[in-house]
Amino acid sequence: MPQISSKGKAMPQSPIRKLVPFAEDAKKRGIKVYHLNIGQPDIKTPQVALDAVKNNTLQTIAYSRSEGSEVYRTKIANYYKQHDVTVDCNDIIVTTGGSEALLFTFGSIMDVDDEVIIPEPFYANYNGFSTASGVKVVPVMSTINDGFALPAIEEFEKLITPNTKAILICNPGNPTGYLYSKAEIKKLAEIVKKHDLFLIADEVYREFTYDGAKHYSVLAESGLDEHAIIIDSVSKRYSMCGARIGCIVSKNKDFIASALKFAQARLSPPTYAQIASEAALETPQSYFDEVIEEYSERRDTLISELKKIDNVKVATPKGAFYCIVELPIKNADDFAQWLLEDFNVNGETIMVAPAAGFYATPGVGLNQIRIAYVLNKESLIQSVAILKAALNVYQN
Amino acid sequence: MPQISSKGKAMPQSPIRKLVPFAEDAKKRGIKVYHLNIGQPDIKTPQVALDAVKNNTLQTIAYSRSEGSEVYRTKIANYYKQHDVTVDCNDIIVTTGGSEALLFTFGSIMDVDDEVIIPEPFYANYNGFSTASGVKVVPVMSTINDGFALPAIEEFEKLITPNTKAILICNPGNPTGYLYSKAEIKKLAEIVKKHDLFLIADEVYREFTYDGAKHYSVLAESGLDEHAIIIDSVSKRYSMCGARIGCIVSKNKDFIASALKFAQARLSPPTYAQIASEAALETPQSYFDEVIEEYSERRDTLISELKKIDNVKVATPKGAFYCIVELPIKNADDFAQWLLEDFNVNGETIMVAPAAGFYATPGVGLNQIRIAYVLNKESLIQSVAILKAALNVYQN
Repeated sequence: MPQISSKGKAMPQSPIRKLVPFAEDAKKRGIKVYHLNIGQPDIKTPQVALDAVKNNTLQTIAYSRSEGSEVYRTKIANYYKQHDVTVDCNDIIVTTGGSEALLFTFGSIMDVDDEVIIPEPFYANYNGFSTASGVKVVPVMSTINDGFALPAIEEFEKLITPNTKAILICNPGNPTGYLYSKAEIKKLAEIVKKHDLFLIADEVYREFTYDGAKHYSVLAESGLDEHAIIIDSVSKRYSMCGARIGCIVSKNKDFIASALKFAQARLSPPTYAQIASEAALETPQSYFDEVIEEYSERRDTLISELKKIDNVKVATPKGAFYCIVELPIKNADDFAQWLLEDFNVNGETIMVAPAAGFYATPGVGLNQIRIAYVLNKESLIQSVAILKAALNVYQN
Repeated sequence: MPQISSKGKAMPQSPIRKLVPFAEDAKKRGIKVYHLNIGQPDIKTPQVALDAVKNNTLQTIAYSRSEGSEVYRTKIANYYKQHDVTVDCNDIIVTTGGSEALLFTFGSIMDVDDEVIIPEPFYANYNGFSTASGVKVVPVMSTINDGFALPAIEEFEKLITPNTKAILICNPGNPTGYLYSKAEIKKLAEIVKKHDLFLIADEVYREFTYDGAKHYSVLAESGLDEHAIIIDSVSKRYSMCGARIGCIVSKNKDFIASALKFAQARLSPPTYAQIASEAALETPQSYFDEVIEEYSERRDTLISELKKIDNVKVATPKGAFYCIVELPIKNADDFAQWLLEDFNVNGETIMVAPAAGFYATPGVGLNQIRIAYVLNKESLIQSVAILKAALNVYQN
């Protein structure tokens, strides 16, 4: 009988996936489950994007260009100009989601056993893309006590080896909600220039910033043209996660030429989703204003409710729609499963993401969970009430 | 300045891509170019699929399940039952095209430097997926004189090493149009069972068979449950190449569990395309009857016209919509470029795919081209007339 590969065995499973059967079982028992565990917003996709697909007149759903149409890429370049990033259509490759953008990037700049330094906690699927690419993740620790700010640059220096090819950040961060400052991006710029590294920035949450804070892109920083790679996606921006459209942006011509070969091998990104994504660029500013106000209020609600619980620590997120919450428990994996299996308040419970899966360092984050505030305020208030009641019972 | 990786440099470029700028330039000069070079059918997508997308009522384009919805996978399983393949929804993972199906398969069953044996000539992008996965392609030669039939099984035996993990076939074949017989599949079954290998069959052209010949799937062969993996796609079947929906089918539970982890890391296949693909399963048989009749006539037209040219050899394809044509020239790369750069008949020329790019063995296929008969009969007749005239001029 033929066997699967070591790589196939090593592919990690998301910490949330293990809980899915327990959530399904809870629902079968009639329990209402509040999903704080996944970044699937409940926000409506912009009407202009939905309409573009409904009104399309294609008769043959043909391959598009592997890198996306020139028209769409030119419009994307215009979008970036509004965000202080000056690029043209040739600096952009349209991908099947941010996921594929990262896979093409890893393939283009790293060989087997090369290393990428990532501040942890980080988006768990970076592990999957690294394993798929044969690349080694080297974590550098950020802490809840510092609000998950950029670790001291000396901590990065210590980890750089001849195999280090890149530093990867998520800004604003999933799962931390941290927004890197201009000063922090400049520090990263210095180190990648000093060591000839790529700086990969997953900026899919660019618009989701609060308290008037402004996102500063790695491609807004001068002198980084050969180093900076933006990973982007329409998923969160327009609440169209299922479209599966993203892009790679870089001024490094060799890198783009290589990524294009990966893109050509898989032929093209999905056609319908490109129609939706191109139209989504016409989304009126009022849509974003409403969405950001909504998330801002959700964040305020969530944080103020969480702070009412004793011995619970949370770093107030400045962006994205996640936060890491430290709980007075020993094992959040066990707690999260228990919430679904054995606990409810009047037939309701919550599903949370245990945070250990967002750390590469073993044993760290065991007492933390990630909460995605993608539910309305009433649901969030109710969810935190359930969390509070659950902690009381679980601790005894 | 940071450098791209050896893998990034090694990623192959399709032999067609090199010609694209010459084709674009020819068009700028007002030359009409008949595209015999690419498998983008001119056939209309089934109305039922187009309508499903136009009539969708989604308000939020959310992630779908990573493996595709249970409803869609159950319908796919029913489709296979009509093709003598008995599987259920748990044996199926929906992918973003056949491309992703192959990438997940390579990742799940092969480690770096593992080997996959592929009869050549083969679909050129197998090289790209192999490079991306760090896998080594070991070609076994099939020849135009044998009509590209399965090479003798002893030729496979000679190539098997401890690193060999799989044999990969494309059936019916791109670029050969060859349809493997039941006897040939049984020979492959014996060798993969004997050596504990996987048998990966790219069956995306399953329906495209001519002269009453019937496709025999690797999963119709008994005793192959642990070995057989089908790579499939809606692209050609429903002329919806741009949808980017395919699937992996296998009864090997360990393999499916591993492939699912790759699928989960990239979150989900595109939502709109799944709507179209699920609806496409309701396409009436009359659609396929018409399409197959059309392709059958195109094939007959193309082959009979080609046979009128002296010193041109072609193996009559039994399936798919490609054929390999041997020409009385030394270098088809040069010839194909010359057709676009320096030749036309009354302002018209043809674009063909040089066949060397479909061989892994260096120096083979230099006097061959691949023709995709995805144009109507009149265009095919005109294209062959241009080819004939071109050969006369080029040879002198």
